[in-house]
Amino acid sequence: MDDKGHYLHQMRATAPLVHNITNFVAMNIMANVLLAVGASPAMVHARAEVAEFAGLSQALTVNIGTLDAPWAEAMEMAAATMAGAGRPWVLDPVGVGATRYRQDVSARLLRLRPTVIRGNASEILALAGLGATGRGADAADPVEAAEAAARDLAHATGGVVAVSGPVDYITDGRAAFRVANGHPLMPRVTALGCSLNGVIAAFLVGQDALPATVAAMAYYGIAGEVAGQAAKGPGGFQSAFLDALYQITPEVLAARAMVTPA
Amino acid sequence: MDDKGHYLHQMRATAPLVHNITNFVAMNIMANVLLAVGASPAMVHARAEVAEFAGLSQALTVNIGTLDAPWAEAMEMAAATMAGAGRPWVLDPVGVGATRYRQDVSARLLRLRPTVIRGNASEILALAGLGATGRGADAADPVEAAEAAARDLAHATGGVVAVSGPVDYITDGRAAFRVANGHPLMPRVTALGCSLNGVIAAFLVGQDALPATVAAMAYYGIAGEVAGQAAKGPGGFQSAFLDALYQITPEVLAARAMVTPA
Amino acid sequence: MDDKGHYLHQMRATAPLVHNITNFVAMNIMANVLLAVGASPAMVHARAEVAEFAGLSQALTVNIGTLDAPWAEAMEMAAATMAGAGRPWVLDPVGVGATRYRQDVSARLLRLRPTVIRGNASEILALAGLGATGRGADAADPVEAAEAAARDLAHATGGVVAVSGPVDYITDGRAAFRVANGHPLMPRVTALGCSLNGVIAAFLVGQDALPATVAAMAYYGIAGEVAGQAAKGPGGFQSAFLDALYQITPEVLAARAMVTPA
Repeated sequence: MDDKGHYLHQMRATAPLVHNITNFVAMNIMANVLLAVGASPAMVHARAEVAEFAGLSQALTVNIGTLDAPWAEAMEMAAATMAGAGRPWVLDPVGVGATRYRQDVSARLLRLRPTVIRGNASEILALAGLGATGRGADAADPVEAAEAAARDLAHATGGVVAVSGPVDYITDGRAAFRVANGHPLMPRVTALGCSLNGVIAAFLVGQDALPATVAAMAYYGIAGEVAGQAAKGPGGFQSAFLDALYQITPEVLAARAMVTPA
Repeated sequence: MDDKGHYLHQMRATAPLVHNITNFVAMNIMANVLLAVGASPAMVHARAEVAEFAGLSQALTVNIGTLDAPWAEAMEMAAATMAGAGRPWVLDPVGVGATRYRQDVSARLLRLRPTVIRGNASEILALAGLGATGRGADAADPVEAAEAAARDLAHATGGVVAVSGPVDYITDGRAAFRVANGHPLMPRVTALGCSLNGVIAAFLVGQDALPATVAAMAYYGIAGEVAGQAAKGPGGFQSAFLDALYQITPEVLAARAMVTPA
Repeated sequence: MDDKGHYLHQMRATAPLVHNITNFVAMNIMANVLLAVGASPAMVHARAEVAEFAGLSQALTVNIGTLDAPWAEAMEMAAATMAGAGRPWVLDPVGVGATRYRQDVSARLLRLRPTVIRGNASEILALAGLGATGRGADAADPVEAAEAAARDLAHATGGVVAVSGPVDYITDGRAAFRVANGHPLMPRVTALGCSLNGVIAAFLVGQDALPATVAAMAYYGIAGEVAGQAAKGPGGFQSAFLDALYQITPEVLAARAMVTPA
């Protein structure tokens, strides 16, 4: 696979405007993550403007964490705009297995063919219709259990599917990769997964989806490793993580990425 | 009273799913607090799913900080689910004395018999119908002024009432305790009170409400003391506070808790 | 111009209740900024109570970042209350140039004569009807390009207009000042501009709007300089920035303010 640092370099040179319709827990940290990596975040959800704003954006993320009816409508409007314009968008089906409502909204969003779907193993299993055991943002299933579901989902949607976990699994239904970068404190800071969606979206602009997603996830995991070196807990970790995203160079990304074909 | 460390140990062993319907200011820090202590937070408020999700949860918190009509409906639906299932829920009547609307919503929620009501002295006085002077999240009244109101409210609801302040007062209407742990920077970080509701909810699972609430509040105050040792201001304090919640062991809690009968 | 430290001293002595109707990204950090400076923040937006709550508040901020129809109505209700009572309110027209909807809502709010309008150059240009190039919270135009627009807008509204940037420009349409304090990491932390609105609002209580706004912006920029001295990136910066706001004395503000007539 090609040089991971290239994708970070290109993303920072572009500083893409990433439009996010995300949950209330993630809003602030996600904007801070996107600013730290060098992208330009915007959060816009009113139905009166969401399609118009999506039209100005280079990428979109949709996250159903704190879902509600008007927000679900806005998600569909923005995703349809991106799909129609051939621009990338990322779907994060938070807690999709927990309620019928989440399943219905996710099914409608899937029809708009997300460029990348990213979730934990339980969410990917639930989204693929396999009845996973997840209850919220936490994963109850191991990544390995969701690999076949990820491939099926990628085939069905024509997009990339990324399963987050201690070792991530990323596939477009044909090729697949594992990313081993990361740190155990990452799941102890809320919305780091949600915020990763924005980084993936920023990396997707003008790039092939599979290698760009792999590069974004390796970069993110390396930032976790750097932050974890000195952190005594999740508070100091969060602060150091933003600093690491800001400081990591394309060269460091290329040198430290732990990516293997799956 | 029994060993405070026991409650922390049990809570971490259970890692309860705590469903929170809280204000927009508190969402992120509350999720981070719950992850740091070892619980599993979820924020869900859509009327289409809120009762179903409450049914999956081991405890619930309701906070009226950034109240609005659809949210107030969701709060009632979720609280009714918990009350019906005999599972614990915590009410935080933020700024209840400030507007007629807050009083009306709080009165409806009180009928659903919260397991624990936690607020500052002004809020507890206002909730007990005594015309307090509070205007927002700040307390204008001292804790002592609200002790009789807290006991009355506990009698009326059959639950525990906790008054937060420099020295907390916690009562079930019969017994009462004071918790002297804490640090003066805690009120300088937003939503630490709101986030405490989640910790109390997590401690309540499978435990008697009064001692579990006392243990949760002592633990929280000790984390404030640890964080305050090195902090130069509220920014560093917030980060150190999350680290302290993560690091404090049951043994440290048992050794440092400053709890006295009232 | 008079002693800048005076305004900080007076604000802390008053500890004004600042009512904020702001975006979801800014809610938490804005409350933390207001607590760190010594004011008392409240976030209230329900139409059932927003005018009543504004009536209890000493100042108001309105920020259209994550706009939606019910929020826009609440903004008008609260601003009308403040305007009718002769109390200060601050408008931040986030991304006003991006969509027609933002322009419409901003035009309605302008009629309620904000005491201070604060934005980046692109937003001030767009608000003055000059067709700026801004797309979101980022400024695509330099501060100098918006000076004439700021003066026009101040004349039209009878208020103060503040253009944020590396060197801020603040005018009431007659006099004008530049504030050179600040740090390059400030735009890398989300919602620091939004949070500044709250500090300005707190400084406005009982003071002339132009010098109070200048003092608030100098204070904020000095806190950025202090925070930037040790920060390795935006994560550590944010934490140090809150500490600096908390620690800076009126004497430090008076000594370090870099304010010149424009």
